[in-house]
Amino acid sequence: MILGNDPILLTPGPLTTSPTTREAMLRDWGSWDGAFNQITQSLCTDLVDIVHGQKDYVCVPLQGSGTFAVEAALGTLVPRDGCVLVPNNGAYCARIVRILQRLAIACVELPLREDEPVTATALEQALAREPRITHVAQVHLETSAGLLNPLDDIAALCKRHRKGLIVDAMSSFGALPIDLRTGGIDALVSASGKCLEGVPGMGFVIVKRSVLDACEGRSPSLALDLYDQHAYLKKTAQWRFTPPTHVAAALRSALDRFVAEGGQRARGARYARNCATLIDGMHALGFRTFLRAEAQAPVIVTFHAPDDPKWNFADFYAAVREAGYVLYPGKLTQADTFRVGCIGAIDVNEMHNAVAAIGRTVERLGIAVQPRTTRVKASA
Amino acid sequence: MILGNDPILLTPGPLTTSPTTREAMLRDWGSWDGAFNQITQSLCTDLVDIVHGQKDYVCVPLQGSGTFAVEAALGTLVPRDGCVLVPNNGAYCARIVRILQRLAIACVELPLREDEPVTATALEQALAREPRITHVAQVHLETSAGLLNPLDDIAALCKRHRKGLIVDAMSSFGALPIDLRTGGIDALVSASGKCLEGVPGMGFVIVKRSVLDACEGRSPSLALDLYDQHAYLKKTAQWRFTPPTHVAAALRSALDRFVAEGGQRARGARYARNCATLIDGMHALGFRTFLRAEAQAPVIVTFHAPDDPKWNFADFYAAVREAGYVLYPGKLTQADTFRVGCIGAIDVNEMHNAVAAIGRTVERLGIAVQPRTTRVKASA
Repeated sequence: MILGNDPILLTPGPLTTSPTTREAMLRDWGSWDGAFNQITQSLCTDLVDIVHGQKDYVCVPLQGSGTFAVEAALGTLVPRDGCVLVPNNGAYCARIVRILQRLAIACVELPLREDEPVTATALEQALAREPRITHVAQVHLETSAGLLNPLDDIAALCKRHRKGLIVDAMSSFGALPIDLRTGGIDALVSASGKCLEGVPGMGFVIVKRSVLDACEGRSPSLALDLYDQHAYLKKTAQWRFTPPTHVAAALRSALDRFVAEGGQRARGARYARNCATLIDGMHALGFRTFLRAEAQAPVIVTFHAPDDPKWNFADFYAAVREAGYVLYPGKLTQADTFRVGCIGAIDVNEMHNAVAAIGRTVERLGIAVQPRTTRVKASA
Repeated sequence: MILGNDPILLTPGPLTTSPTTREAMLRDWGSWDGAFNQITQSLCTDLVDIVHGQKDYVCVPLQGSGTFAVEAALGTLVPRDGCVLVPNNGAYCARIVRILQRLAIACVELPLREDEPVTATALEQALAREPRITHVAQVHLETSAGLLNPLDDIAALCKRHRKGLIVDAMSSFGALPIDLRTGGIDALVSASGKCLEGVPGMGFVIVKRSVLDACEGRSPSLALDLYDQHAYLKKTAQWRFTPPTHVAAALRSALDRFVAEGGQRARGARYARNCATLIDGMHALGFRTFLRAEAQAPVIVTFHAPDDPKWNFADFYAAVREAGYVLYPGKLTQADTFRVGCIGAIDVNEMHNAVAAIGRTVERLGIAVQPRTTRVKASA
């Protein structure tokens, strides 16, 4: 097996995991067996600890991708006659709106630019305009652009206005500080295959115990019912339906590495170094980031596509992949972009090497990388 | 890593997979990358082939456990004003009823004993009693007892009466013959970690193209919408939301082994040998099967618990596990039982060894294994 020749994934999950994490999947586990139940229990304990929720929160793991866990949180926690405010600055916010539409739950969108973090003021105005709002559904880190929304401000506001707050922390959990002790957050959703550096296949919701306790029978779905999942887990130490045993074992191994690395602070610092190395290198090549530095989270970076007729993302992607790095397409409606992740079991070495590979690629393909707006200004 | 010392799982999924299948998880895959898209595509093609659905059926893979795929099939294919007949001879049938209740879809139960396969006659009478019925949801192999329901008869009946038929083939797919060419089946649901001998973490629905095409926007769930999942897959070759990449890669490897073994016929034959070896050995120890031989599927066998006050399943389980074999608890309401699976990457050797381990265990624990009814008869 020539593992060393696999490309490095510069994608925001699935991402490059450590060999140790993958090796944890070399064993089979009985889903009813005590040894696996211990894995589940320890995962839940550790995940709650990462965000300081020991006192009031429980962790409910869920089969499926992160989106399954987001839908489960919305469907289980928001009553049918609730109304959810969704500040929308990207595709994952828009996905929440689509989920709510399917669940037939009323929803108010607060439209924002894709490079504009929500502000507490804008949220407060939206709450004032629509008194029916019972909950806010907030994406912490909008992976569409790599945009960071100010979670602490939003949580404080929701606490003050007594609105439920459900946070999609898919690509921030483990990398950015989140502290549930400050209050205001009902539920926090993330998944195995993002900044915790596990493999994809399970999500989890860290939810306030008192909130969850009031939600029996509310979910319109059996599979996505967090109340039932938690009640069964509490009673039996087992998942309700067949768990993704190997994915859970890999996450256990990944969490061991997370703790050994120094927890969220150390992981966030490594990603910040990765991100700075990437952006510096790409700037030097002439690429321009889509976001202002203040709004940029150290997880995934969106770059403007070069304004050159020779530019074609598919060709560029294939050539950089050939050089050992898997990039990510853009996901924005407002601009032609591509994305480079800086998370996973990688450090500044990989970022230097990726930048070098990108540099060789644009040179070989003969693409002129001159920032679009600069050129526009120059020709004006 | 001392893999050889892990116990053998005699459980109906998760089960013991081959080392090759697990080693397929030692690589990371980009979910947007062409190499992974090819895995998805080839999985779908092969899964449809196994049940001869090439002409009229498509395969829609879905994140999560098999139950997620069952709920997705019901929620996507049955209209809100539909009415589903559920022949109920076990826990997985009962789970379908619970799913339908959550989805607020009308449901008619046909109650049966847990050791009694449904008959076409009973189904036909139920259809005659309730003309509102639009669909039948049938569990092919009820894992609660290991009971086989007569799928061909049921499919023929549904075809004749023009009722939609959704089949939970969770623990039969790949092991027992299913031929979609004979008609009558709208959708067939199974999962990665059962008789295909992959690891758990994804389900799939093999659905008639013409049926699925009529279901746009019908699912009350975004995550569990098979129409959307299929449309996106067709358009992009990608899963809608993050796929369980490692689980899919393991299933690819497992399917390669499935084909190499000789497909469904060979796999079914191996399981039949395993099952016969197990039952013969257990009979010799004095254990009695719950099901009559005609109703027994070669996948999992339910045995009556010994009628001895010293019997305690937890102790028995722990002792047999110590000897290298993980058993499964009973799941019946009508009798005190336990279960032994005969599927997975195991053959008659493991079954002989497991029976020997069980024999040593009952001897060591001093449990008298005398069939309950025999003793009752003898004392009558």
